[in-house]
Amino acid sequence: MFPMKSLPIGIFDSGVGGLTVAREFRRTLPREDLIYLGDTARVPYGSKSPETVVRFACEDTAFLLQEKVKAVVVACNTASAWALPELERRFKVPVFGVTLPGVRAALAATRNHRIGVIATSATVRSQAYTRGILARCDAAHVVAVACPLLVPLVEEGWLDHQVTDLVLREYLRPIVAGRVDTLVLGCTHYPLLKPAIRRIVGRKIRLVDSAATCAQFVAERLADAGLLDTRRRRAGEIRAFVTDETERFSEWAERFLGEPVAKVSKAVLPGLR
Amino acid sequence: MFPMKSLPIGIFDSGVGGLTVAREFRRTLPREDLIYLGDTARVPYGSKSPETVVRFACEDTAFLLQEKVKAVVVACNTASAWALPELERRFKVPVFGVTLPGVRAALAATRNHRIGVIATSATVRSQAYTRGILARCDAAHVVAVACPLLVPLVEEGWLDHQVTDLVLREYLRPIVAGRVDTLVLGCTHYPLLKPAIRRIVGRKIRLVDSAATCAQFVAERLADAGLLDTRRRRAGEIRAFVTDETERFSEWAERFLGEPVAKVSKAVLPGLR
Repeated sequence: MFPMKSLPIGIFDSGVGGLTVAREFRRTLPREDLIYLGDTARVPYGSKSPETVVRFACEDTAFLLQEKVKAVVVACNTASAWALPELERRFKVPVFGVTLPGVRAALAATRNHRIGVIATSATVRSQAYTRGILARCDAAHVVAVACPLLVPLVEEGWLDHQVTDLVLREYLRPIVAGRVDTLVLGCTHYPLLKPAIRRIVGRKIRLVDSAATCAQFVAERLADAGLLDTRRRRAGEIRAFVTDETERFSEWAERFLGEPVAKVSKAVLPGLR
Repeated sequence: MFPMKSLPIGIFDSGVGGLTVAREFRRTLPREDLIYLGDTARVPYGSKSPETVVRFACEDTAFLLQEKVKAVVVACNTASAWALPELERRFKVPVFGVTLPGVRAALAATRNHRIGVIATSATVRSQAYTRGILARCDAAHVVAVACPLLVPLVEEGWLDHQVTDLVLREYLRPIVAGRVDTLVLGCTHYPLLKPAIRRIVGRKIRLVDSAATCAQFVAERLADAGLLDTRRRRAGEIRAFVTDETERFSEWAERFLGEPVAKVSKAVLPGLR
């Protein structure tokens, strides 16, 4: 039998933002093969309803399994927040989201138990981070803020721009007023805003990057399950699929993944046939 | 036979922005019934590829025809720009977009033949406005600027906000530098930014609202074709369909349409079954 552990890890996201998660997997597990799926035809998920997000996430996961993967990583915070239980129920493969690793990292980082979360509207509405934190620490106080303009600002490339600083200043006001010492970046795009966020909150607040914590978390889980190909010596490869055009992917890969992707194909999901 | 002219006019959009177009139809044709479809599960179209936009627009149109309409209005500028020829080819009902009325209104308004267009990235990439203007006026000079942050700013409700003014100042710089005397608002959301745009460009530039010009244009065409129910005395009704959840629609109707919508249902398109 073809050994399970030699299969790639599948990662999906609503679009290209999840490439920040893929980037952390490349760093943490450089010898693993990755398959990335971005649902660029239906992006974003962060402004949509739970029902729609769950439906899309199921299609994304089914596609990755069809491509043969040993585990599925839900890079999209909104899909992690809403769809994880359904994905775990429906699919017979380990499925990991970004929420739980982020929750654990935030609790490990905080000293005063006051934690901020910034995310899309749908993620904040789900209360996934807030509930995850409170379930593990009664004493915690969570300030969660929906920041719908941040993804468009990152996609516009305005990372170092007066407008972005102004928007962040407004969004982060309750975070700063809430005297949090730890801030969870609860959306795939936000790691690119770290320098801008630092300009507003300074050095005193720890930033929890859910992409980095997720890669670490999954690496440990896969190692425990004997699903890492530890004897492999060659560098892992990354293949990408998108549901909209493939043409502009290389530009995004440069920005979000930090390396080129040789193979990019169009994924035809059931809803897009 | 059931008279064609008693049927409603169908209007579709990628989301709720097209309600600004519906609002103009309510004003211009108050006795007509309207059916509005917003593809809120897959919004926006403005960042997506022509192929994907055409596919979605065909599904939207087919849905409206199934609901029995006498004409279809493509309220979404991006869909008008990319999908109109395919819709006209494929469906046996008058189909109207917002581009041509906008082009004609801009040419009627300009004195110096220098025309600005602001729109989504996909609309600008299509060059639909630019080509439409140049096809009718050799001497015209068109400055088209993609403004991807404006829709998120309108949806965030920051209509009268320092950030919006700063963003507009940046986007409108080539428009102002291009000494245009007429500016086409080439996206359904932009009419809500008229006061903010006025703060930047002053009173000297004429704003062409593609929603208003479209309603006028369609009213004339339907009258010419004998498709208006001129003997009807009662006020028209509006029914709405969305592809994502119906719950938050009333809030959007208030903002974009300016009146409540009594009947809102979920539309199940082929790709979302």
